[in-house]
Amino acid sequence: MITVNQIAQLVNGTVMGDGDVPVKGLASYKYAEEGDATFVLSAEDLEAAAKSDTSCVITTEAVEGYPKTMLQVKDLKEAIVILYNAMREMKGPAKKGEIDPSASIAESAILGKNVAIGKNAVIGENTRIGDNASIGANCVIEKDVSIGNNTLLHPNIVVYDHVTIGNNVTIFSGTIIGADGFGFVPKGDKIYKVPQLCSVVIEDDVEIGANNCIDRGAFTDTVIGKGSKIDNLCQIAHNVKIGKNVLIAGMCGIAGSATIDDNTIFGAGVGVSDHTRVGKNVKVGAKSGITGVIHDNEVLFGYPARKVSDFKKLWGIETLMIKHYKKLKELILNMAKD
Amino acid sequence: MITVNQIAQLVNGTVMGDGDVPVKGLASYKYAEEGDATFVLSAEDLEAAAKSDTSCVITTEAVEGYPKTMLQVKDLKEAIVILYNAMREMKGPAKKGEIDPSASIAESAILGKNVAIGKNAVIGENTRIGDNASIGANCVIEKDVSIGNNTLLHPNIVVYDHVTIGNNVTIFSGTIIGADGFGFVPKGDKIYKVPQLCSVVIEDDVEIGANNCIDRGAFTDTVIGKGSKIDNLCQIAHNVKIGKNVLIAGMCGIAGSATIDDNTIFGAGVGVSDHTRVGKNVKVGAKSGITGVIHDNEVLFGYPARKVSDFKKLWGIETLMIKHYKKLKELILNMAKD
Amino acid sequence: MITVNQIAQLVNGTVMGDGDVPVKGLASYKYAEEGDATFVLSAEDLEAAAKSDTSCVITTEAVEGYPKTMLQVKDLKEAIVILYNAMREMKGPAKKGEIDPSASIAESAILGKNVAIGKNAVIGENTRIGDNASIGANCVIEKDVSIGNNTLLHPNIVVYDHVTIGNNVTIFSGTIIGADGFGFVPKGDKIYKVPQLCSVVIEDDVEIGANNCIDRGAFTDTVIGKGSKIDNLCQIAHNVKIGKNVLIAGMCGIAGSATIDDNTIFGAGVGVSDHTRVGKNVKVGAKSGITGVIHDNEVLFGYPARKVSDFKKLWGIETLMIKHYKKLKELILNMAKD
Repeated sequence: MITVNQIAQLVNGTVMGDGDVPVKGLASYKYAEEGDATFVLSAEDLEAAAKSDTSCVITTEAVEGYPKTMLQVKDLKEAIVILYNAMREMKGPAKKGEIDPSASIAESAILGKNVAIGKNAVIGENTRIGDNASIGANCVIEKDVSIGNNTLLHPNIVVYDHVTIGNNVTIFSGTIIGADGFGFVPKGDKIYKVPQLCSVVIEDDVEIGANNCIDRGAFTDTVIGKGSKIDNLCQIAHNVKIGKNVLIAGMCGIAGSATIDDNTIFGAGVGVSDHTRVGKNVKVGAKSGITGVIHDNEVLFGYPARKVSDFKKLWGIETLMIKHYKKLKELILNMAKD
Repeated sequence: MITVNQIAQLVNGTVMGDGDVPVKGLASYKYAEEGDATFVLSAEDLEAAAKSDTSCVITTEAVEGYPKTMLQVKDLKEAIVILYNAMREMKGPAKKGEIDPSASIAESAILGKNVAIGKNAVIGENTRIGDNASIGANCVIEKDVSIGNNTLLHPNIVVYDHVTIGNNVTIFSGTIIGADGFGFVPKGDKIYKVPQLCSVVIEDDVEIGANNCIDRGAFTDTVIGKGSKIDNLCQIAHNVKIGKNVLIAGMCGIAGSATIDDNTIFGAGVGVSDHTRVGKNVKVGAKSGITGVIHDNEVLFGYPARKVSDFKKLWGIETLMIKHYKKLKELILNMAKD
Repeated sequence: MITVNQIAQLVNGTVMGDGDVPVKGLASYKYAEEGDATFVLSAEDLEAAAKSDTSCVITTEAVEGYPKTMLQVKDLKEAIVILYNAMREMKGPAKKGEIDPSASIAESAILGKNVAIGKNAVIGENTRIGDNASIGANCVIEKDVSIGNNTLLHPNIVVYDHVTIGNNVTIFSGTIIGADGFGFVPKGDKIYKVPQLCSVVIEDDVEIGANNCIDRGAFTDTVIGKGSKIDNLCQIAHNVKIGKNVLIAGMCGIAGSATIDDNTIFGAGVGVSDHTRVGKNVKVGAKSGITGVIHDNEVLFGYPARKVSDFKKLWGIETLMIKHYKKLKELILNMAKD
């Protein structure tokens, strides 16, 4: 719990009304319960929030005589971000530590304190789950998995054997961690499978969205480094090493044995070829395709990707070529005659 | 139930045999039961259908003395489409309203008449499910969700809290509705999470395929408009607003806060940048990438997308450039010398 | 069981130590149990493996006095691949044939010998499951499905009605087989659905990764041919016919009614337009888009794809154009003036 006055200090805002009101969470006014702070973007929101159960309204334009405590800030979204992250650190575990009787937990599994396990979840042999961790309904966690403290797995996730997941990790529904990597060697009319003998290591503070696939390694582990965040529907192939605080937007595909260094940012739909090495602080635009060695601090765009400054030049020339299409065609054909 | 004679009127066809035969459904002859109509594409199909349990064969070429009632039409696929959609409107709910005893339904959930709930499904607190709705096996529907009448959720779907789904909606397996949007702000060596405080609204008559991700909104709801259809493996990011009767083929990604207006059609694999505004009746070719403001009725292709007419000119020039590669190279190098 | 001496013959290696040691499996030294062979890539691995429970270490550089039986080979990965595939053929079914009491199996379902069914799995009416097949936890297999011998379905898979899956097939978690294809016909302000009346046939020896979508056919079945392998997050649309021993890397999308002939290989993220016909032994580079008719043995790259030799020429010209950007711009503008 934190008071509105304390929030005001945190976000450099001004309180109107009772600043001693305690705040327990943040919510849209549509769902806000007593004790929640909310935000308003418009006059309509302001009116609706007045009738809601919210305890405090955060706004850029305070009004007189409002029936709730008001907190006026300069940048609404920034204030919400600061407040949310501060409250997250203060907060305890996401769920009460209840183990649903319909869950199936192997006798050899070791559960920490206050672990929550949802309906029909399956926990395999020798799997360890840390304190305050929560496993959602219908998750299947296979054998010899290690899950850290305060880690939150949403419903319908599959974690294969020997995967290691750190502390304070969040994984959203439908994500599959540790399925076999794709390794096949055609020889004559037969296709040999390359065994996928290693597993996946997900370090602390990682967030992984929904319906992702993070494959187990073949001869070394696949690694997602501390603090990295992955959106939805991404493919992280076998043996990939992702550094710390890397941001990967939706629908990116990182092919086998690629490495991505710290603080790099990928827009949505980026493809990375196998064995590609991407440096630190690289930025890659949406739907680009990269390969080879990408040095620190590069900014790339396109398929295949070029430096963004080069891409813009190419785009400019192409636009000119389209405009003067007929003359250019003549020129090339004449040139060819010579 | 409808008779073959009634179908003949609907699709402008000619009946051979007993036109009073009742038809209850449409099926491939391989699976057809008594009362099902079927279609045949070849002489082999015709022969096999004769031995099946089907009650009526729809074909473009009727034959004498066939053992089943025959309905001859000009355009087979068109006839099937008309018939299927007409029967769909006539039909009652997809499933008998049985609630499997293995399902877990919160006491505060409110179920309409004739609701079907599959094995091991989980229904959260205060969730409302409309009349004749059906929730598949192993679905997890969180708290405060609203699901309309006649809506059909296939197995293994996750719907997060506060999502609103309208009437006559169909959602296929593996789709995740309402997971957090991807919002992170790196500051120094820390990454702040932007809270995702709003939810998802899916309007009436929407169809959503398998393994999609439709994220909850951050500061406004994500909206899928009435009658829109989404194929498989698509990413609809936070705050996206999709209009009415929009068609989105597989593997499209619509980034945060983009808006797509009514009747627009996306080929497969299209990427839409964040905050892009797409007008009405726009058509975008497969795997294109669009950004900025796209006006009504535009037809676009490419990555990044151009007007399709411009793209074709560019393709023509590129083809010429490849053909006269050596001379063109010389020309550019000579030009550079001057 | 096989001895190290027998393995040495298989992979053309040299044994140091007790060659009569029996080997039951392959594992990373980190997880190896007694009876497992392991591989080492480095001096550190070698030291750690010495302390593990492994029975045999495969390496390119044997050392004197090592506490485990050692098998020295020229090419470590090749040796592992050969050994793994040989052991796979020798091995029995993946799991003990146990049917978990929490599984729900329709009375009319027909199970072969030694079938394993995981927790909370649902098996529909008239579904047949072959000898030694294994269905993972939380799978939903609908009615009238046929699953062959020795086939392995991992947890959280959905298989819709009438799907046929052959022998020795492996499917990873989150994959959806047989959801409706995407067929809609807009007419005026209404959208008609094209019925998806057929199903999916998956032939023997196919491997399908995680979170894929393989849609049921509309008027003919969707077919995945014998021995083909599909990575993760792919979309195989309705009516697609994939030949034998085709390799499809992650995130590929094959649109409706396309055909892919035997031994063709797709890199990751390839898109194939609807009704495209791809010949045998074709190779398509990552993220390419192909359409029309692709002849046998072609090697393609790009979006839209060209022959890879043409693509390289175009890339070379583009690079020159970027380098001499200013002069080229002048040239085109002067040309336009004439």
